[in-house]
Amino acid sequence: MDIEGFRKAGYQAVDRICDYYYSLEKRPVLPPVQPGFLSKSIPDQAPEEGEEWVRIEDDYQNVIMPGITHWQHPNFYAYFPCNASFEGALADLHCAAISNPGFNWSCSPSVTELEILMMDWIAKMLGFNDDFLSTSSSGKGGGIILGSASEVTLTVAIAARERAISDLSRHFPPPNDDMRANGHSQGGEEERSPDQANARLADWRGKLTSKLVMYGTTQTHSVGAKAALILGLNFRALEVKAEDAYALRGETLKRAIEEDKAEGRLPFLLVASLGTTSSGAVDNLTEIAQVASLHPELWLHVDSAYAGVALSLPEEREASHLDAINGSFDSFSTNLHKWGLVQFDCSPLLVRDRGNLSRALTVTPEFLRTKEGDSGSVLDLRNLQIPLGRRFRSLKVWFVLRSYGLQGFRDHLRRTMSLSRVFESCLIQEPDFEIVAPPRWAMVVFRLNPASNGSGGGDVNGRSKTNEGLEKLNRELWEELEKRKSELLLTQTVLPEVGFCIRFVVGSPQTRENHVRQAWNVVYECGRKVLEGNGLSLKP
Amino acid sequence: MDIEGFRKAGYQAVDRICDYYYSLEKRPVLPPVQPGFLSKSIPDQAPEEGEEWVRIEDDYQNVIMPGITHWQHPNFYAYFPCNASFEGALADLHCAAISNPGFNWSCSPSVTELEILMMDWIAKMLGFNDDFLSTSSSGKGGGIILGSASEVTLTVAIAARERAISDLSRHFPPPNDDMRANGHSQGGEEERSPDQANARLADWRGKLTSKLVMYGTTQTHSVGAKAALILGLNFRALEVKAEDAYALRGETLKRAIEEDKAEGRLPFLLVASLGTTSSGAVDNLTEIAQVASLHPELWLHVDSAYAGVALSLPEEREASHLDAINGSFDSFSTNLHKWGLVQFDCSPLLVRDRGNLSRALTVTPEFLRTKEGDSGSVLDLRNLQIPLGRRFRSLKVWFVLRSYGLQGFRDHLRRTMSLSRVFESCLIQEPDFEIVAPPRWAMVVFRLNPASNGSGGGDVNGRSKTNEGLEKLNRELWEELEKRKSELLLTQTVLPEVGFCIRFVVGSPQTRENHVRQAWNVVYECGRKVLEGNGLSLKP
Repeated sequence: MDIEGFRKAGYQAVDRICDYYYSLEKRPVLPPVQPGFLSKSIPDQAPEEGEEWVRIEDDYQNVIMPGITHWQHPNFYAYFPCNASFEGALADLHCAAISNPGFNWSCSPSVTELEILMMDWIAKMLGFNDDFLSTSSSGKGGGIILGSASEVTLTVAIAARERAISDLSRHFPPPNDDMRANGHSQGGEEERSPDQANARLADWRGKLTSKLVMYGTTQTHSVGAKAALILGLNFRALEVKAEDAYALRGETLKRAIEEDKAEGRLPFLLVASLGTTSSGAVDNLTEIAQVASLHPELWLHVDSAYAGVALSLPEEREASHLDAINGSFDSFSTNLHKWGLVQFDCSPLLVRDRGNLSRALTVTPEFLRTKEGDSGSVLDLRNLQIPLGRRFRSLKVWFVLRSYGLQGFRDHLRRTMSLSRVFESCLIQEPDFEIVAPPRWAMVVFRLNPASNGSGGGDVNGRSKTNEGLEKLNRELWEELEKRKSELLLTQTVLPEVGFCIRFVVGSPQTRENHVRQAWNVVYECGRKVLEGNGLSLKP
Repeated sequence: MDIEGFRKAGYQAVDRICDYYYSLEKRPVLPPVQPGFLSKSIPDQAPEEGEEWVRIEDDYQNVIMPGITHWQHPNFYAYFPCNASFEGALADLHCAAISNPGFNWSCSPSVTELEILMMDWIAKMLGFNDDFLSTSSSGKGGGIILGSASEVTLTVAIAARERAISDLSRHFPPPNDDMRANGHSQGGEEERSPDQANARLADWRGKLTSKLVMYGTTQTHSVGAKAALILGLNFRALEVKAEDAYALRGETLKRAIEEDKAEGRLPFLLVASLGTTSSGAVDNLTEIAQVASLHPELWLHVDSAYAGVALSLPEEREASHLDAINGSFDSFSTNLHKWGLVQFDCSPLLVRDRGNLSRALTVTPEFLRTKEGDSGSVLDLRNLQIPLGRRFRSLKVWFVLRSYGLQGFRDHLRRTMSLSRVFESCLIQEPDFEIVAPPRWAMVVFRLNPASNGSGGGDVNGRSKTNEGLEKLNRELWEELEKRKSELLLTQTVLPEVGFCIRFVVGSPQTRENHVRQAWNVVYECGRKVLEGNGLSLKP
């Protein structure tokens, strides 16, 4: 395709995206396709000769699009939102046009510098204090935009592990440390090869690492357990209770630390949640900070993939323990690509000391050296992350935050939160439904609970605990909702002491009140059908 | 921005990208900016009110663009190319418009299914046999598109480690394995908590893991050492020699395996290179496969981030040991986002048994379960990778391979290779320059070596070895070339037995013969200046 061919194809793509957004509401949220559908329409190998662009673009519309789940659909209430904005799409187009891997400052000075500046914009927008800025008085704060909460959690776990091993090495020094670099023994010991020295070092690291314990709760997103699995670390899921709305309490953490230390293990990282996936639970970060003050070796991370953007709302900060985060936590992350109007992938990670990242992640062969990097006058993003290359992710942040402004950004959050309260109020008015955890942000978790008939409905506590009958009813409700997936999409979950239940999260800029009421009507219909099928009926 | 606002802004963005490509040649390859330049033009926090789009788009052109390094510039010869194609840009635009995280099949059936199909297209294009296809007779082959070679290497290392630990567990069974799942002791032993059982398991894993050894060579890209660093594994860089053109030989591998096994260590992974970054070296994969046949526990991976796409050229396959890869290797990866016309990020990983990935990387909480996933009728991409969410990367592969066709794809590679031979022939004709490693693909590594005067020039062997004088001369040459970075960009490296030298890689679809000759003129001028400054002069 030549430049003029691109102009034509580009206009057409823009027009088709406009058509898409005009027609979005009429499309099925989940496409009615069966596994393997696409192999029927796509040849089993690439064509030998190039094809006309117009045919390819048409096939995108006719072959690919019918198998797309529309996360931008106004009736998408599943998982968490995955916002798209036109501003973000334009940034991704520009990013693709000047494609570059941005690993060093000189790979594109604007890529590195805009990312540092945007991290400061984000930190300030969310109410973080000076410590988390690149301009912090310590000179150590700042962060980086990673690709996903998984990558963030893994990166934090690596940095925390290295900090812990470095601390431990003061009491348990590595074997013949001086041999590591050059393979020459300095003392009277027998001569050893660098390979042997490395092997001894691996033994030493293995012993220390196996003593480390990483904490989350039973409600921590699986990114925590997966990071531990990847690193071969011991992950301990601390218990949380329904009566605490699934929040980790300080006392539970304190007991766990004491137990582990008594048995010779070292708790080195807590992945705390500000808004769990299953129920939006908020760990008690204030209590956690108090407990951890006696255990400075414990790295405190906040995973707030979904809800973190809501810290941009001053009224949300106290309940989100922002003071505790600012005062005591080592790192924090939220995904702007969920509820934050920026396209996937955009997971900013804020840290109090970015040296912990670079000490753990810097590897510099000759061909990656630069004059600016050697002189220390620039930050090379590769040293704060797992991969070498990376996309120009900060551009979409800049486009979105400028075009919306902080007001527009907050309006989007407040508007979708108020839509969630519409759904919540429908549930409250219906005594056979139960809200099973305190609704937060734009998320409500509920189930059918006809046993609660007459109790007034809608309260969070004091309902029936898990029992087989409720489990069966709600799985049936889920089956009914699965049949309606072209109309609306939700996600199921399981909560301790409750069992099977259903999540409703609203976050699309396309969603209006009529969509939410229509969604409620479907949920209500499905509930009525299930109750009737079980010889029960919804209370009038 | 509303839909009509997007139409207008989209057209404008397309027009500006056209302008960009028309003006590309006139722009400085490396921008003449100083560290910190951008903070002078960008406020230190996001605006409170939204701004007009036209101002933002203008600022992109006037503020960001002057700090962009133009990887698409015809005179970009640094690192490896980072190709952009118009087709790829259009795919990224569509991907952003329907943003979705694609972790499960149902998150967008087309995202999962197109990726599986495109992996087969890629495997066939590169000459891989049935074993590496999703339609393999074993039912186990296939792969996934990851974000970078770093992510690939880390993913492979995790999968190989888990395979090794699983093998080892037959001889060294985990402690009280039955306690792990539920915390109940089954035998007569004392009661232990699940936490205690996990701690014992971590001890056991730590002991085994510390015995594992990962192999690369001194020339393996730092992604190998970084993966080992991240996983806390022992990485052993095997020696390679200039006389072998920096290829790992079977004998070296054999000796290392025997040494390590004799000392009770287990070599579990070899990251072999097909085209190293410093010199384009090709490890002797055929010899490696022979040696490894006696050590089936050793996972054989090929990192061919740059050169792998050249397997699409039948004439390149024999020298690239494709038969050995097809017959004996466990995994292979190349970056289509380097020389393969697809925008960053696009690192396909082909594996012979994708079960090794999913066994190592699957974590499924309730909220990620789906009917299709539970039934096993679909592949969920999250289980083959480290992160949960991911971009719709296969779309750009589909667009590019259809629009170029296999012919167009091969033409691009052959054309840039022939341009590299133009530069090579200039070097050969100039006796004071020396090519220090056999040129391969579109890459030449060279240095000034006036000591070779009269020897005929251009031969690979038989030149001076490293000495301080040459080192100094070539660092001076590099200093001179650094001053010309607005005109052309190259990268330095250091090779064993040679020392400091300079890489030239051509790969941009924009580069023509006149650019390469112009680049040679600059290199020649800089060389002459350095020689004259040292009281030497280029031979007439």
